[in-house]
Amino acid sequence: MPVLRQVRERFAAQRPLEGLRIAACLHVTAETAALMRALLAGGAQVGLCAANPLSTRDDVAAALAEVEGAAVFARRGEAPEEALDELVAWRPQLTLDDGADLIVALHEADALEDYLGGLEETTTGLVRLRALAAAGALHRPVLAVNEARSERVFNDRYGTGQSALDGIVRATNMLLAGRTLVVLGYGPTGQGVAQRARGAGAVVVVCEIDPVRALEARMEGYEVMPALAAAERGDVFVTVTGVRDVLRAEHFQVMKDGAVLANAGHFDVEISLGELRALAIEPPVELIPLVEEYRLEDGRRLHLLTGGRVVNLAAGEGHPAEVMDISFAGQALAAEYLAGDGAALPAGVQPVPDGLDVEVARLKLEALGVRLDALSADQQAYREGWTPPVAAPSPAPGSAP
Amino acid sequence: MPVLRQVRERFAAQRPLEGLRIAACLHVTAETAALMRALLAGGAQVGLCAANPLSTRDDVAAALAEVEGAAVFARRGEAPEEALDELVAWRPQLTLDDGADLIVALHEADALEDYLGGLEETTTGLVRLRALAAAGALHRPVLAVNEARSERVFNDRYGTGQSALDGIVRATNMLLAGRTLVVLGYGPTGQGVAQRARGAGAVVVVCEIDPVRALEARMEGYEVMPALAAAERGDVFVTVTGVRDVLRAEHFQVMKDGAVLANAGHFDVEISLGELRALAIEPPVELIPLVEEYRLEDGRRLHLLTGGRVVNLAAGEGHPAEVMDISFAGQALAAEYLAGDGAALPAGVQPVPDGLDVEVARLKLEALGVRLDALSADQQAYREGWTPPVAAPSPAPGSAP
Amino acid sequence: MPVLRQVRERFAAQRPLEGLRIAACLHVTAETAALMRALLAGGAQVGLCAANPLSTRDDVAAALAEVEGAAVFARRGEAPEEALDELVAWRPQLTLDDGADLIVALHEADALEDYLGGLEETTTGLVRLRALAAAGALHRPVLAVNEARSERVFNDRYGTGQSALDGIVRATNMLLAGRTLVVLGYGPTGQGVAQRARGAGAVVVVCEIDPVRALEARMEGYEVMPALAAAERGDVFVTVTGVRDVLRAEHFQVMKDGAVLANAGHFDVEISLGELRALAIEPPVELIPLVEEYRLEDGRRLHLLTGGRVVNLAAGEGHPAEVMDISFAGQALAAEYLAGDGAALPAGVQPVPDGLDVEVARLKLEALGVRLDALSADQQAYREGWTPPVAAPSPAPGSAP
Amino acid sequence: MPVLRQVRERFAAQRPLEGLRIAACLHVTAETAALMRALLAGGAQVGLCAANPLSTRDDVAAALAEVEGAAVFARRGEAPEEALDELVAWRPQLTLDDGADLIVALHEADALEDYLGGLEETTTGLVRLRALAAAGALHRPVLAVNEARSERVFNDRYGTGQSALDGIVRATNMLLAGRTLVVLGYGPTGQGVAQRARGAGAVVVVCEIDPVRALEARMEGYEVMPALAAAERGDVFVTVTGVRDVLRAEHFQVMKDGAVLANAGHFDVEISLGELRALAIEPPVELIPLVEEYRLEDGRRLHLLTGGRVVNLAAGEGHPAEVMDISFAGQALAAEYLAGDGAALPAGVQPVPDGLDVEVARLKLEALGVRLDALSADQQAYREGWTPPVAAPSPAPGSAP
Repeated sequence: MPVLRQVRERFAAQRPLEGLRIAACLHVTAETAALMRALLAGGAQVGLCAANPLSTRDDVAAALAEVEGAAVFARRGEAPEEALDELVAWRPQLTLDDGADLIVALHEADALEDYLGGLEETTTGLVRLRALAAAGALHRPVLAVNEARSERVFNDRYGTGQSALDGIVRATNMLLAGRTLVVLGYGPTGQGVAQRARGAGAVVVVCEIDPVRALEARMEGYEVMPALAAAERGDVFVTVTGVRDVLRAEHFQVMKDGAVLANAGHFDVEISLGELRALAIEPPVELIPLVEEYRLEDGRRLHLLTGGRVVNLAAGEGHPAEVMDISFAGQALAAEYLAGDGAALPAGVQPVPDGLDVEVARLKLEALGVRLDALSADQQAYREGWTPPVAAPSPAPGSAP
Repeated sequence: MPVLRQVRERFAAQRPLEGLRIAACLHVTAETAALMRALLAGGAQVGLCAANPLSTRDDVAAALAEVEGAAVFARRGEAPEEALDELVAWRPQLTLDDGADLIVALHEADALEDYLGGLEETTTGLVRLRALAAAGALHRPVLAVNEARSERVFNDRYGTGQSALDGIVRATNMLLAGRTLVVLGYGPTGQGVAQRARGAGAVVVVCEIDPVRALEARMEGYEVMPALAAAERGDVFVTVTGVRDVLRAEHFQVMKDGAVLANAGHFDVEISLGELRALAIEPPVELIPLVEEYRLEDGRRLHLLTGGRVVNLAAGEGHPAEVMDISFAGQALAAEYLAGDGAALPAGVQPVPDGLDVEVARLKLEALGVRLDALSADQQAYREGWTPPVAAPSPAPGSAP
Repeated sequence: MPVLRQVRERFAAQRPLEGLRIAACLHVTAETAALMRALLAGGAQVGLCAANPLSTRDDVAAALAEVEGAAVFARRGEAPEEALDELVAWRPQLTLDDGADLIVALHEADALEDYLGGLEETTTGLVRLRALAAAGALHRPVLAVNEARSERVFNDRYGTGQSALDGIVRATNMLLAGRTLVVLGYGPTGQGVAQRARGAGAVVVVCEIDPVRALEARMEGYEVMPALAAAERGDVFVTVTGVRDVLRAEHFQVMKDGAVLANAGHFDVEISLGELRALAIEPPVELIPLVEEYRLEDGRRLHLLTGGRVVNLAAGEGHPAEVMDISFAGQALAAEYLAGDGAALPAGVQPVPDGLDVEVARLKLEALGVRLDALSADQQAYREGWTPPVAAPSPAPGSAP
Repeated sequence: MPVLRQVRERFAAQRPLEGLRIAACLHVTAETAALMRALLAGGAQVGLCAANPLSTRDDVAAALAEVEGAAVFARRGEAPEEALDELVAWRPQLTLDDGADLIVALHEADALEDYLGGLEETTTGLVRLRALAAAGALHRPVLAVNEARSERVFNDRYGTGQSALDGIVRATNMLLAGRTLVVLGYGPTGQGVAQRARGAGAVVVVCEIDPVRALEARMEGYEVMPALAAAERGDVFVTVTGVRDVLRAEHFQVMKDGAVLANAGHFDVEISLGELRALAIEPPVELIPLVEEYRLEDGRRLHLLTGGRVVNLAAGEGHPAEVMDISFAGQALAAEYLAGDGAALPAGVQPVPDGLDVEVARLKLEALGVRLDALSADQQAYREGWTPPVAAPSPAPGSAP
């Protein structure tokens, strides 16, 4: 993780987080540990509980606690609520969240006295926080780290775009070329999935409810249609909407025999498991690991991947380390910002400042060996000036010259 | 122009611009006339001068004046300053600009008494207006119509992406496949040019100064490098930066014999004509129409297209009518908005409200015959709710489950 | 035409065609003249008539006759049969054909005494010649120059792929992005059209009767379907089949209002003009040059481009000069071959030897500045050896190792 | 395997292989067993040994022997030579080979009396057989089943194109987007790897020694350069040449720190392991399974995947079952052909007849639910006729009309 490492080295030298209590409710993994170490290097005290106890690596948790001195409230398989309570009681000043659980818990416990604000790294968490804010019940600034431009570029479009398809191929060993793949949702992640699926030779169909995004999908050369029409066409379905029940009984009823159902959205609600189970004439059979077969009355079989949970993480190995590197370097910089100027932000979900993004991208390009130009002083002045250039005006748009 | 036509029909029924004096400083073309007619249908009085007198179609100007009753201050080839003065004296309440000339003139003339605000449709104009605003000298809201999402999707990326390459191919009759094409600037237009050039079989190299955009270009599989390195590699160069002197003597000195230079940015300043002329050992020779050959001391020849003016308009026929349709429908809706709720916006450059974009995209998809789903009430509630779904949490990112 | 120029320079030095009577029935254009000059440089006597009198450039014809001493039987607009007779009477030893007219005429006139064989540059011509051969009526070898690998790569796929779409865009000024483009025929040219259309953002549908080609199209991610199903879907139709009546009444009857019909195949028979005229309720109206509107009984309008003649040539400027360069350099080399070793080939349509192709591609890569490796002697020996390498065998295909 | 199943069902009904002794030297896997069952269903006696004992699945071998009555000479891990001898002694009449071992053994043992001919499924095997034929030492026809059009379309380009990259991603968990991937060899497999790598966002560089293929790569928009120049550029290298020592000391010496080396060719000779080991300052370290790190004197590290053995099979799960389905269905049809008309073919490597290919593709399209048109009698007659159509000739290529 070369980008995060560069940040950590600067933190160690500058100690921008000196004495700050930072609590994180994240997946307890090796990558998270690297982020914690960067925060510790910056002078912070660090508390940690598990966003999902099933993913906790106890060795990582132990090492963080014992070697690094973090306060760790995570044990694999343990119920998360208790750990969350303990972490709230620890009185964090800054929080890092994966789903907004910790921020919500702090608000519910009314434990905001020392609290400066937080970072949230999932779309789902932001939906919750914006709803909270709309209800007048969010009292601190929260930086939407996963809406940062560099995140959208790197994590959503490219990271998940690749890893969702990797997950599907690993689970099924299918050839994507020649298959019809239906992407439901054309946000950054859906764009990535669509682009990679086409790049692998699939016929790609997009379902999207937002007209501007739908128009963009169409301009990229994808077919765009309602989900019901797509249901008859697809060999593989990938949901990435952030919305529940995107695929449901009416769609299952018209799908082809052997259709593959995968979810690449955060929660396992995008494919309606309830309606799928209700339609099936018998309990699902695990064909091969991660692939369950649902048999319908008319003999058709639908193949659900990874129980409807996010397919890139469950079937693959999650994001490549370099995607996590970018993400967590961005979070470290965002924590630094929130500990400084960002503390003055108004309550509510706030964008990550452009400068942080640019810094992350700059560090990453350096790691890739890509060099950039800079504007000259004259060019900078031109760009900022509002006097028109002394130059012939352009001819008319839309007319023959 | 089916989208604008739908807008005009609604305007005729609802008369949302009744009695308003709307002045436009645009290219006086058939498409502009269609926009003027939509505004007139909405009840407005309309005044018009030419953003570029060279592009004025006198027949269109005459018809607008005589048949439609517009106040037209435009005659092909006439100096624009005088017409601008007359239009200022006409005391417009709303303005439509292509380069900010009219807004600036109103401010300079201190003729803001009745003035509600304006629309600006070029990046270059917005740069001027933002500089004005930064200097505390912009006193009304200006809607950045070309930064609307639908514009970015439709006009910049897809419209100019296609038409810039069309212009180059028409001017040179070259096969793009196998050529190295260097795109300088990776904003929406540069993205479109890069995508279409790759789609035509070119090897594409991107030069960009913004690290996030540069990283995105790299993630799309383009090579990214400084302009000086690219100068040695390219067969064709396309500038789309909004900045001056992007290609200059240092670049010309290392280009290949026969390199083609094209500008797809708004003003003809992106390729430094001064430095090109200074390097050449003799005046340029027009090889074929729109292609000038500059001969350098060492015998190399550089081929400048359309005198450095925007190549898609000069060599091609400008944007396809459907792109203008989207653009001008958006402007009509933006004018309606500014005449209503938008008048209360604070002074400064303001984004077009999302709703307008969505409406434009919706009308366009209808014209393309593409249907969309809508969220159910349950899905809408889920999306807006902040209580977590009752569902298994996702496994850890970045870790094997 | 740098590739042909290199060939001509070698011919001038080596005179491989000394004294040979070579007759060509081609389009009389500047590019053809360059080919003729290369043959003359090689020592040949050259006779020329026009494959299509409408395309004859009299100035070119005159210059070839007067300056170069060719025997030219071509005048713009003149009936071709007479010229053909004169050329037959000239007793050519070698022929160059564009549609097989000259070879057929020589056979019909039984004027084969001195005749060594010919070159044919169109698929249509080869179809005729193979039918002739199958009937036992072709008595000399004919090299299928347009089936050479380099031709397929350069001319069909890349040249026509680009120029057919250029032609459509120039005729209609349409934005390809977002349109559904139906390609009928997925040979090399159809592949090029499909690839470029996708590269321009179109949704591409392929119709093909050969199962292997159809499967390939599907593996490339195109939808494949029968023409009747595609007829309902397309905004633009491009025929490239070599077969007649590919689009006919049954298809016209289900097309969308405003559908655009273009042919990129050699002859104007792929779109059934007879059935189109019969369906229309009135004679077609020329909307804009090259675009005829046919109005059907139910009000739908179909737009035929360039009267059904090959759209890349009629609406655009034909192939880029560099494509002609490759083609004609290949023909010059093929003529040299036929004058030498090739004369011993059996009667019938024969492939161009691989070596000629390789030489053409080599010269072209040199012009593009692309360098290649060569095999070392060891590698060459390995490649040619049949003793198995001393190396671990590979694991099993289709099984986990 | 729906395509092979359809073939097997017909074989069971028609018994085209009645009594024939067919011997196969293939990887002993579940897919191979399915092929054997199809041959048995056709009436053949079947003998089997292992092309690679490491890949033998003993359960599959046992089931074939016990249940199906095949003569199986394969046990996991056993030396192959002995089994080969036994199979030769079994006097096969037809052979199926993966590397030509069995055919060569039959020739060396002079056991050709009853032998009709064979099938060979690897490029490497064909190289051996053609060398044998050139030496006048191949005495029976051998069908080049992997050169069949459907194989090239399905197996090489699409199957290996996807699975080679899958293998690399699984071994390294790397994000392909933004990486520079060098493909050495631009045959069908190299084309597939390049296409999929670009589709995954990589910057793709091609090295190729054949000028026509190199030109095609360039026309597809890839950079083409000698291996030594590419060595400095690449993050990932994939060899698919069929030649030895394509990457060797001179290349290793200029590669970037962290460069990844993968072979997708048949044998593990394309990356020179000897030169790599000689350059390294210590024995390689297994970083993670399938990834060995070689440390060079200047501190750079090179990462060799799967010990230089074919990466798609070793790191991934080999070809998707549907690719094997196509391949083995094609082999079953080829065996039927060789048992019938094909037995009369002259000695030497022979192409698979077009009809077999078409049949395979037809069955596969049926499985995909894709329907095709057929030519009408009129169209068929037109296509075969050599009289010119009564239609306006086309305008001139390369000239303005």
